[in-house]
Amino acid sequence: MIDNIDAHIDENKDRFIGMLQEFLRIPSISTDPDKKSAMADTASWVQERFNECGLESQIIDTPGHPAVLADTGPVDGSKVTILVYGHYDVQPEGDLSLWKTAPFEPTVRNNILYARGSADDKGQVLTHILSALCWTKLAGKLPVRVKFLVEGEEEIGSPNLVGLIEQNREALACDYVVISDTAKLDADTPAITYGTKGMVYKEIILTGPTNDLHSGSFGGTIANPGNILAKIIAGLKDDNERVTIPGFYENVENIPEEEKASIHSLPFDEDKYLQGLGAPALTGEANFSTLERRWVRPTLDVNGVYGGYMAEGSSTIIPARVGAKISMRIVPDQDPNVVSKAFDDAVRAACPDTVRLEILNHANAAAYVCPIDSPGIKAGIKAVHAGFAKKPYLTREGGSLPILPMFRQILGAESIMLGFCDPNCNAHGPNEFFAISDFISGIKTAAHFLDEMSKGYPR
Amino acid sequence: MIDNIDAHIDENKDRFIGMLQEFLRIPSISTDPDKKSAMADTASWVQERFNECGLESQIIDTPGHPAVLADTGPVDGSKVTILVYGHYDVQPEGDLSLWKTAPFEPTVRNNILYARGSADDKGQVLTHILSALCWTKLAGKLPVRVKFLVEGEEEIGSPNLVGLIEQNREALACDYVVISDTAKLDADTPAITYGTKGMVYKEIILTGPTNDLHSGSFGGTIANPGNILAKIIAGLKDDNERVTIPGFYENVENIPEEEKASIHSLPFDEDKYLQGLGAPALTGEANFSTLERRWVRPTLDVNGVYGGYMAEGSSTIIPARVGAKISMRIVPDQDPNVVSKAFDDAVRAACPDTVRLEILNHANAAAYVCPIDSPGIKAGIKAVHAGFAKKPYLTREGGSLPILPMFRQILGAESIMLGFCDPNCNAHGPNEFFAISDFISGIKTAAHFLDEMSKGYPR
Repeated sequence: MIDNIDAHIDENKDRFIGMLQEFLRIPSISTDPDKKSAMADTASWVQERFNECGLESQIIDTPGHPAVLADTGPVDGSKVTILVYGHYDVQPEGDLSLWKTAPFEPTVRNNILYARGSADDKGQVLTHILSALCWTKLAGKLPVRVKFLVEGEEEIGSPNLVGLIEQNREALACDYVVISDTAKLDADTPAITYGTKGMVYKEIILTGPTNDLHSGSFGGTIANPGNILAKIIAGLKDDNERVTIPGFYENVENIPEEEKASIHSLPFDEDKYLQGLGAPALTGEANFSTLERRWVRPTLDVNGVYGGYMAEGSSTIIPARVGAKISMRIVPDQDPNVVSKAFDDAVRAACPDTVRLEILNHANAAAYVCPIDSPGIKAGIKAVHAGFAKKPYLTREGGSLPILPMFRQILGAESIMLGFCDPNCNAHGPNEFFAISDFISGIKTAAHFLDEMSKGYPR
Repeated sequence: MIDNIDAHIDENKDRFIGMLQEFLRIPSISTDPDKKSAMADTASWVQERFNECGLESQIIDTPGHPAVLADTGPVDGSKVTILVYGHYDVQPEGDLSLWKTAPFEPTVRNNILYARGSADDKGQVLTHILSALCWTKLAGKLPVRVKFLVEGEEEIGSPNLVGLIEQNREALACDYVVISDTAKLDADTPAITYGTKGMVYKEIILTGPTNDLHSGSFGGTIANPGNILAKIIAGLKDDNERVTIPGFYENVENIPEEEKASIHSLPFDEDKYLQGLGAPALTGEANFSTLERRWVRPTLDVNGVYGGYMAEGSSTIIPARVGAKISMRIVPDQDPNVVSKAFDDAVRAACPDTVRLEILNHANAAAYVCPIDSPGIKAGIKAVHAGFAKKPYLTREGGSLPILPMFRQILGAESIMLGFCDPNCNAHGPNEFFAISDFISGIKTAAHFLDEMSKGYPR
């Protein structure tokens, strides 16, 4: 049967591309209040696809944008239940002048489909829907019970997702969550991501005088919030790029030798990586490799600084108010609440009482690691191998997916991350793309994954 | 004669206020390209006043806004020539909602005239023009030769002033420059400012990756320009608020005991000063008093920082580019070129090669101090004493007036700063004001200054 499905996917390639283009044409920008109806249209479009597959589906309204739920219902002989999670909302288009073709007019050039959302996440979530369509068409039903949860608020931080999952805990009950919202290792190398970092995101705001002051008339007599801010930020890391916040590394375990070896075995080209970023050099926490720093070591980064005179030229002021956005990416052994408090304590200790300090919390999420020996991972490896005709590497990810520890906590299910797109696909930038071959291989992988699962992988 | 002039000024108070209001109604905002004709109208208005005084005058066009020159010509018995410098351009009105009455509809409330430019500098420069009018009216001529240079580009950094003075070196030749563009010590205490700080204004720009990068996917593997910027700025000052740039203090002399004593004798209320600023505390370079830090010690201040995500909320990026504007106020013994190079060297040394560094120069101006025992200062003290019925304090100023060392260099003349306005007059802010009594006392002071000068003060 799975061979027939593979053949069917190849035969229907153009039709599937056409469906993806239809999906991509609806400008489902979740941050844009003017796109309310486009969001509803997109949810309906997704529901129609589920109808085509014969799945029971419903649109669930939230205080924000609706989510689409679907379910095959019990499947004869199915021993596992899979929940496919994805999102139909996309990032704003950004600077239109940087796009070669319009972001919502999906265009194929050299076998690559360019459009906002092509990779993140419409194209990737559609592979699973099309896999369901193929199974239904050729086998009359899916080989295991499959549920879908396609939300419309991922790009705005999924504010209503926890509530929705808690309220639909029974309907969403599953053994594994499958997510295609990550990337391959590189353009030619498929990968399964088994871990993500957590995140603690802070904003430090310092205020000094009531108004911006003339730096000549008043300079030297009061603390300059800009200078103090620099001192505080500078003190958060030492010259070895180690975070100096007391207790920050307390529960950070050494990398197991096995994982270290696995990471080192990856075909990772530092020069190519650096070239892709355009920075003058690679650097980071002393005594770790680039991939270790990226995936398994906690980091601290300034995300933005602002205050005082920021336009062109000069203005001679002491800023009344300056701020910095600072995020820490944390690893599984770090508790985000502990890191959050440690950060606040360190910043408060470093801040003199000559300025006023305010600390805002923007994000607080735990890291996630799926055990490598999980049956779900094993099924995923086989499925990707079949779909991409290449064995995938097991990788981790520096980014954060707060939904993963949340799925584990509420549904008791591990998440299997099958990423089909190129890591340089400009997910949030101009000219986002999804290679046609990756799209097709993704549909096959999704189909094979269900096939593997039907062979009786235990939970 | 001078007594008659004093009386005449009192008698004509209302007429003079009316003239000032007329002057203030023309919105001569030099930064605003739409105000080209208002600028020309204002220059003509100033020239008409010189015509009334019987002075020869001319409007000199520049690549920017015109300047007005005037000259009594040789005056029988005059042994000195005075050049009055001032400016007819004003700052933009800023946030109109903060003005109690419209900025260009001069309004008197409680004997205070509110309008943009009332203090800076239309009101103050007009005192000298009105003094000339009074002398002409009552004595038929001015007691010494007086020249005027009223420019229209002070608020945009006087880009064409040096060229104009160099080209009119002969026409502007003088023994003393008189400037009324500073303030009194406080609302009740007249002052003569005998020194200003110089300024070196820099902008540091750091670039890392080509584009903003996802802080999760790439954090920890390349240098974050935001963190590096903080380290560089933090390193510019130590915990005692001393600038750490090698050689920065090299030529900074200790404050002479006499000047120290003079500064300490000033009626300066630290609590009131702090209250005015609204900062939590006063602080600054260790071992110096607030007024010493303000007037005679060099300072280094962040004027602004920018880069990465600066809007509300959060965005998880490593900024491609961050920058900081940093100005140093320097004292007479520091050479701005030496300080400029020392800053660049220190920043370059502190900047790792994991980011790209660019340093912009926004200003480079020497400090200025007029010898306290200069005859011009002595004449000024007598004139202010007569005009305000109070002996003025001798003060310095933390701000910079690059024109002062320039007048000394090109014309060989020292500058006498007779400031008539309240230091809290909101010079560049909303509700700028000039007390009527200060305006009238200013006209008297200007008249007395010429009278004193006619008594044979040597150069």
